[in-house]
Amino acid sequence: MGKVTENKIIAASARLFNMRGYHGCSLQDIMDATQLKKGGIYNYFNNKDEIAFAAFDYSFNLILARFREALEKATTSREKLYAILEVFASFYKDPVAAGGCPIFNTAVDATHSHPELTQRAREAINTLKRYIEIKIDEGKESGEFKLATKSEELSSLIILTMEGALIMSRVNNDPAPVATAIKYLKTTINNSILTLKTNQAVANE
Amino acid sequence: MGKVTENKIIAASARLFNMRGYHGCSLQDIMDATQLKKGGIYNYFNNKDEIAFAAFDYSFNLILARFREALEKATTSREKLYAILEVFASFYKDPVAAGGCPIFNTAVDATHSHPELTQRAREAINTLKRYIEIKIDEGKESGEFKLATKSEELSSLIILTMEGALIMSRVNNDPAPVATAIKYLKTTINNSILTLKTNQAVANE
Repeated sequence: MGKVTENKIIAASARLFNMRGYHGCSLQDIMDATQLKKGGIYNYFNNKDEIAFAAFDYSFNLILARFREALEKATTSREKLYAILEVFASFYKDPVAAGGCPIFNTAVDATHSHPELTQRAREAINTLKRYIEIKIDEGKESGEFKLATKSEELSSLIILTMEGALIMSRVNNDPAPVATAIKYLKTTINNSILTLKTNQAVANE
Repeated sequence: MGKVTENKIIAASARLFNMRGYHGCSLQDIMDATQLKKGGIYNYFNNKDEIAFAAFDYSFNLILARFREALEKATTSREKLYAILEVFASFYKDPVAAGGCPIFNTAVDATHSHPELTQRAREAINTLKRYIEIKIDEGKESGEFKLATKSEELSSLIILTMEGALIMSRVNNDPAPVATAIKYLKTTINNSILTLKTNQAVANE
């Protein structure tokens, strides 16, 4: 029963913090959303920061799970990168917590105002960056991608482009920026493709 | 004297709102930063919203001025787009208000929590998008860019990529994401170049 209540607090807070930011979400908002009294929340968390950290970790784990699931079906490295683009795109219509991508929302919200939350956003971005880099490195090792492909740069480019697109799509309530970002990143990824077989697959699309 | 005080309130608030977000900046913060009493601020503004709107407009005008100034020196359309990239990059080391780009910060901060501020961010993004689109269209008319260049897409791509890069650079305290974004966008811009003369200039760089 305790775990159910704790998870309810975390899921509701993840949504509230993501939509309103750390400073825009009060303990009262969390009490209203969960229908719990202050004491009911303080049974599980000592303060607002502890709730915010748990909410961020909860959202980030949902993000990682979505990437893992999408990549299970992909076989080539190119398919894996395409799947990564689609996971980012899915955050527009179906975010892990209402209000966009919690990683970049937290990065914007917390930088200069909450060092511990900023640190969590930074680590999340760098975990994601390393995750994509590994997929590109695997593609280079298997002879699918050109050896000259700069894994770290391409990985950063994918993240920053998709995250910028998600913000622009969200503020305009328009899917076009996300679609534009994917189109351009696919071209960039295909320019890194080496093998004839994969190029043939591209040509046949 | 009144105008000086009003401008002092606006400039201080632009910085505070940009660093902490709308909800993270209280009237008390503005009083502390300006060394004014509540009455001194209410001489000029009826409420926090009026201050936030004036602060946003102030920052956006500084952004537009920076673009205009940078583009004065550019002659070809390619030079103009390069200058636009450099203006975005300048927001990393030298933002118009401390704390990153006020347009995307406001977009992230206000979407779902403050419709009027969201509307201002949306209009600012679309003004910028139209501004860049016109530069691309001019390049197509002058025969510098390929007629097939999709002005609206390329303009969106420049904005969303540079803004995503600024957030990633800021949270990591690392200029690399901004540099990576510029490198890839220059490649994309150069792929839209038609004239031999301009291509020659690219090759000679």
